[in-house]
Amino acid sequence: MSHKCPLNERGIFIILVLMKNLIIAQSGGPTVAINASLAGVLEQNQKTNSFKKIYGSLNGITGILQNRFLDLTEKTSEDPTFITNLKTTPAMYLGSCRFRVPTEEEDFSFYETVFSKFEEMDADAFFYIGGNDSMDTVAKLSAYGKKHKKSTKIIGIPKTIDNDLIHIDHTPGFGSAAKYVASSILEIAHDTYIYHLKSVTIVEIMGRDAGWLTASSALARNEYSNAPHLIYLPERVFFLEECIEDTKKLLEERDDVIIAISEGVKDKDGNYISASEGHKDNFGHAMLSGTAKYLEHELHQALGVKTRGIELNILQRCASHIASETDLCESMQLGATAVSLYEEGKTGVMATHKRISSHSYKLEYTCHDVSEIANQVKSVPDNYINTRGNDITDEMLDYLYPLIQGEVSLTYKDGLPSYLDVSHLVF
Amino acid sequence: MSHKCPLNERGIFIILVLMKNLIIAQSGGPTVAINASLAGVLEQNQKTNSFKKIYGSLNGITGILQNRFLDLTEKTSEDPTFITNLKTTPAMYLGSCRFRVPTEEEDFSFYETVFSKFEEMDADAFFYIGGNDSMDTVAKLSAYGKKHKKSTKIIGIPKTIDNDLIHIDHTPGFGSAAKYVASSILEIAHDTYIYHLKSVTIVEIMGRDAGWLTASSALARNEYSNAPHLIYLPERVFFLEECIEDTKKLLEERDDVIIAISEGVKDKDGNYISASEGHKDNFGHAMLSGTAKYLEHELHQALGVKTRGIELNILQRCASHIASETDLCESMQLGATAVSLYEEGKTGVMATHKRISSHSYKLEYTCHDVSEIANQVKSVPDNYINTRGNDITDEMLDYLYPLIQGEVSLTYKDGLPSYLDVSHLVF
Repeated sequence: MSHKCPLNERGIFIILVLMKNLIIAQSGGPTVAINASLAGVLEQNQKTNSFKKIYGSLNGITGILQNRFLDLTEKTSEDPTFITNLKTTPAMYLGSCRFRVPTEEEDFSFYETVFSKFEEMDADAFFYIGGNDSMDTVAKLSAYGKKHKKSTKIIGIPKTIDNDLIHIDHTPGFGSAAKYVASSILEIAHDTYIYHLKSVTIVEIMGRDAGWLTASSALARNEYSNAPHLIYLPERVFFLEECIEDTKKLLEERDDVIIAISEGVKDKDGNYISASEGHKDNFGHAMLSGTAKYLEHELHQALGVKTRGIELNILQRCASHIASETDLCESMQLGATAVSLYEEGKTGVMATHKRISSHSYKLEYTCHDVSEIANQVKSVPDNYINTRGNDITDEMLDYLYPLIQGEVSLTYKDGLPSYLDVSHLVF
Repeated sequence: MSHKCPLNERGIFIILVLMKNLIIAQSGGPTVAINASLAGVLEQNQKTNSFKKIYGSLNGITGILQNRFLDLTEKTSEDPTFITNLKTTPAMYLGSCRFRVPTEEEDFSFYETVFSKFEEMDADAFFYIGGNDSMDTVAKLSAYGKKHKKSTKIIGIPKTIDNDLIHIDHTPGFGSAAKYVASSILEIAHDTYIYHLKSVTIVEIMGRDAGWLTASSALARNEYSNAPHLIYLPERVFFLEECIEDTKKLLEERDDVIIAISEGVKDKDGNYISASEGHKDNFGHAMLSGTAKYLEHELHQALGVKTRGIELNILQRCASHIASETDLCESMQLGATAVSLYEEGKTGVMATHKRISSHSYKLEYTCHDVSEIANQVKSVPDNYINTRGNDITDEMLDYLYPLIQGEVSLTYKDGLPSYLDVSHLVF
């Protein structure tokens, strides 16, 4: 990272003329931490003056195509609390999109349009904050840039509550979602334990391909409650008979059984156990719903006890009021890292971190070639899942534990969390 | 309320011998504030020494029948933080039950058993914290007590997230549930606004017979978001065609429509619009589910846009981490009021409050004959609902606003809210 020396007025003028701009955008599904990464970029730039202007492209890369930008440098200079409030505002302050970037062969003009806009706006860098699909965009744009000798550096900043990106210890947004999931399971346990009757509560947790978030439900266990009593991840084939058998056995020992199950569990034929109704999103991913409701019905039929299915739904990705402070700080740091990577002249990389030590939790911030990250899925490894496939191991708990630590300091207004005005997103 | 003068040792001994005990229990569905009322009783007794011992009957009145008690006086003297932690612990610390008390004609022995237990335990008072059905228990027990000249005073302390008890300004637990609902709607709005495409989000909120909690979703509205854009309460017949028409019209003006709908809305024939599958609980109440899912399907069919149904489910009644401090303090005060009512020799009453002023919010704590409260439902009045029946009025907002103010001060341990150990409830 360059260090700028004190300058006289003429020197500052030359620097300002030479300084270029940054375009930044957010994409994919929301998390609680994706704005924290944006805040990290803005805060770091206040320290390093790497960019003259930072423009937010609205609704992901589509803002570049439609010429819809927000001057974030102006926002930060107008409002000294902007960065702090941005850190704790849920979802995407700049909006999102579900837009699959075409290959050069499919649509060369797309690349010409995007890079012309970069040139027009004097953008020496484009940062894209997103998950798997967004890293695909970063990989494609940077490959095009390298091939056609474009100067704009393309850098990815990760996020996803699913924690399924490779080459990163864990993804921004995951820790907060995990904290929400674990807190909810604990509160559901309190709610469930009050009746002296047999019951099964099934909590459906997000995670289409990877069970990280469902696994984090285990963090709810403490000295008086070992809920969830069963945990089913998509990394293992789901056998309904085994689930009925496991639940039945537990009900012989105790009144209440709480099950955490991933929305993405599949049967032995590879079909989702929930009724997917054949809906697919723009990326061809099956849209799921109803795993909990399906099990509620099946377990009630099989065991004849009270059953209740609870879908945590989108609150697990947008409940900023119970975000993990560790998650938000690390997300900011990844934003700051992207600025440093730009200063080092990097392109086609994603800001990332490695865990240096498990016991005294510490991360090292670095980068990784984004082409090796895009379109890959990091599944929960075998040693994190028990043999029966209905729980996680202590090794996984050690991995998860640091990620939910710390509480966010949030301002409340009129009894509700005070978030940033997002009226610029409302159509 | 009696004021005790300083005494010498012999005097204290005589007082202790004369002092009687209290049995207290909790019943019905959980709220975030039902333990706060229990905490209020314990705290008040520390000040007034009204009772020598306070015993918690486990799992409502069934604890009396099964001789299952917890010595709460011991708990408070053993742990100086017990009352503070109890205040913020969700659901029922003493457990609950769904037990309909028989009439004297149906089962005279029930009353004999209960009052013998009162005598055996030297209980000069029995406090029951609960909703509609629990107030029925208070009414029946106190009527029996009066008729058969029993000395034990029977006093009700209200609670219910539904806010549907009469003769009280609002019920303990409602304010916290309202804060959770409004915060969730606000966070869902942030999540929804990120995509530049037409969508309808339907949020299903608890409330079988009354729409108070669904109405509180309107508290989410602020200077940048007017979600929810439509609000449907069970106080009005639900016409699907009108809902489709209203939604369609809104979609012509804007991208995202967020609908708050009560689980209890019914069609013109008085049938719940959700698939109730004919399940009924012990009180003969229909068990509902799927109003949001039903509308998700119907609106998708009719309008062809992306629709998503979200059921807030039981988290709206157990998410203590976002409780309303106003609600918890008022709930404690109602517990304290019950102790004062006992001191005044009252029986067959419920501790309650009246709103003295709407603008400078202030309550007066008092009591009301419980027989006039039990088995009644306070519906949302006409002047609180707009003419079209798809929104609430400003008058209702004025009523709701004070109830969600203030944030609870919660201790976190290992990244999660720290609640009281409830292992005594786990079977």
